[in-house]
Amino acid sequence: MRNSKKFALLGNKKPLKLDSGKKLENFKIAYQTYGKLNKNKSNAILICHALSGDQYASGQNPITKKPGWWSKAIGPNLPIDTNKFFVICSNILGGCLGSIGPKEINQKTKKKFNMSFPVITIKDMVNAQKMLIDELGIKKLVSVIGGSAGGFQALQWAATYPESVISAIPIATSFRHSAQNIAFHEVGRQAIMSDPNWCNGNYINYKKRPEKGLSVARMLAHITYLSEEAFQRKFGRNLQNKLSLAYGFKTDFQVESYLKHQGQTFVDRFDANSYLYITRAMDYFDLPGQKKGGLKEIYKNTPVKFCVISFTSDWVYPTKYSKEIVDSLNAVGANVSFVEIETDKGHDAFLLDEKEFNDTVKGFLKATANRLGF
Amino acid sequence: MRNSKKFALLGNKKPLKLDSGKKLENFKIAYQTYGKLNKNKSNAILICHALSGDQYASGQNPITKKPGWWSKAIGPNLPIDTNKFFVICSNILGGCLGSIGPKEINQKTKKKFNMSFPVITIKDMVNAQKMLIDELGIKKLVSVIGGSAGGFQALQWAATYPESVISAIPIATSFRHSAQNIAFHEVGRQAIMSDPNWCNGNYINYKKRPEKGLSVARMLAHITYLSEEAFQRKFGRNLQNKLSLAYGFKTDFQVESYLKHQGQTFVDRFDANSYLYITRAMDYFDLPGQKKGGLKEIYKNTPVKFCVISFTSDWVYPTKYSKEIVDSLNAVGANVSFVEIETDKGHDAFLLDEKEFNDTVKGFLKATANRLGF
Repeated sequence: MRNSKKFALLGNKKPLKLDSGKKLENFKIAYQTYGKLNKNKSNAILICHALSGDQYASGQNPITKKPGWWSKAIGPNLPIDTNKFFVICSNILGGCLGSIGPKEINQKTKKKFNMSFPVITIKDMVNAQKMLIDELGIKKLVSVIGGSAGGFQALQWAATYPESVISAIPIATSFRHSAQNIAFHEVGRQAIMSDPNWCNGNYINYKKRPEKGLSVARMLAHITYLSEEAFQRKFGRNLQNKLSLAYGFKTDFQVESYLKHQGQTFVDRFDANSYLYITRAMDYFDLPGQKKGGLKEIYKNTPVKFCVISFTSDWVYPTKYSKEIVDSLNAVGANVSFVEIETDKGHDAFLLDEKEFNDTVKGFLKATANRLGF
Repeated sequence: MRNSKKFALLGNKKPLKLDSGKKLENFKIAYQTYGKLNKNKSNAILICHALSGDQYASGQNPITKKPGWWSKAIGPNLPIDTNKFFVICSNILGGCLGSIGPKEINQKTKKKFNMSFPVITIKDMVNAQKMLIDELGIKKLVSVIGGSAGGFQALQWAATYPESVISAIPIATSFRHSAQNIAFHEVGRQAIMSDPNWCNGNYINYKKRPEKGLSVARMLAHITYLSEEAFQRKFGRNLQNKLSLAYGFKTDFQVESYLKHQGQTFVDRFDANSYLYITRAMDYFDLPGQKKGGLKEIYKNTPVKFCVISFTSDWVYPTKYSKEIVDSLNAVGANVSFVEIETDKGHDAFLLDEKEFNDTVKGFLKATANRLGF
């Protein structure tokens, strides 16, 4: 399935007011859709992508030429069934695949934003998505679904627009970024900003790219996406194309080769400044901090049905954070189901073909569709 | 207590043959001692330092002007009691505080080694320590004690020189480096080697220093030394000297400030190439791989008494690795005691003032001293 590029021009009537106090006018959001919108425009599902994701959730990614990041989950008869649902996935605000972000042109100055792009938040991203949904004429979403930072967005949708979403599936996520989460992001940012090719963020103007710094940031992040057990099972101490240690600093171990590959392929498809902005938005995410009384107050009387999913070996957003969400929802009598999935695949399990995970999403959406009469 | 600089010139009669096949002749090992060696030279304890440690385990560190890294553990009436024991701590092979390493002069070429320094292993470090002990006229050590990479050395001592050590205390350590351990080290090395001031390792010749790269490596490593709980308890999402988010990329959170400080102070006292060499030595550590039959064969009939200590919240070398050591020792009927200490302080707990840890070391050494008639 080929992806044709879709854009929405938003904020032309009313600007998007950001959490920082700044405003964005006349900005583009790039998005993709899968399946068909029904006549009543009542069968739409919004997929929210994570830090390094994009709008190409299914079909072929035009940059990497590989299948979209969730093509195993989205499609006919798949967990997110495009025979029933119209699936929308937009490149998040601050992203680098066509939505407004640091590498785009500031319409006011006619120059690249670079680091003059305003710092954004998860809530800002969700507000931009809401503008897109409005633009598409959709009043209510069947579901908002996302893993990791996509889960932040799903939780924020349910908090900010409870009347516009029937259900939310926050996966492998948390209600706030922890100190350790912030710490890992800060090291990644320092790696990027220490690269002399970053040029104080103006690398595009100099036709340079901070590839080494971004690669180090990605290598580090990738360690956190896998569990210790998965690393051991996949690589152990296996050597890369050699029978004995080389006593040098080139690649000795398979795990080194794997990580370097992850770093190298990432710099071909991702913008370093976008990485700074999106990690910052994640660090700033603190849902309970948005309202006095925290999660309970935020979700009091919520009409949204939640399906919270966590993975046993996820150490970035461990199950305990999902449980805190579930406890708060239960405390206010919300409709919530919670599934902790036993896997050694770590945080990235939601991107992989995990049967129990697929079954959970499929079952929850099927029940929702049945209730809605699809 | 002031530390006067002590050096031993080793390998002048017989060179040190390294695991790589290369040899080191006429090399210096810098060391410090605390307490007094008795007449029989039978009261010596060897302390092995970790990756970023040095020989200044107690007294004042002449570089940082701060107390030595284990001054809470070594001294009169302290767990490692200098009223009874003569305590030796040497800067490891490849280190940067006076022992031979990449920043020292190659006596053959009269130039700095830089990256021509041979890649070394934990076993090489231990062999150099054995030469030092021989030089000091000590036949048998009461104990070899170390945490983290110091624990690797303690385990290696018991494996290679079982007749020369009465006891070993490996702390917060493992019998081999895991895939995840290697992965974290590789990211740190890439950060250093990506810094243009690294100059292919020849930065000293150019009067430069890869400070940014080394700082990123240290920041990353530091995250692994603390537990997620400790990060949350110490910093949470507290802001640094401000009341609200700054919507920028400077320091917003206390945890960012803390990490940056860790990075900045490290570059003042540590050599980047040494960091590469020592992390590589750690990656290469695979004790069971040294002998067919693994740990059981290595420690079969060992006369060494072991006290293995782990910490519940250490996720770099979790308790399961200590348990595997203990299981192997038990399987061959070795004399081993094992203590897992409940703490949320993470891997670095061995450097901190943990009462149960101090009591364990003190009790084990006291019993050993009693047996020896001190």
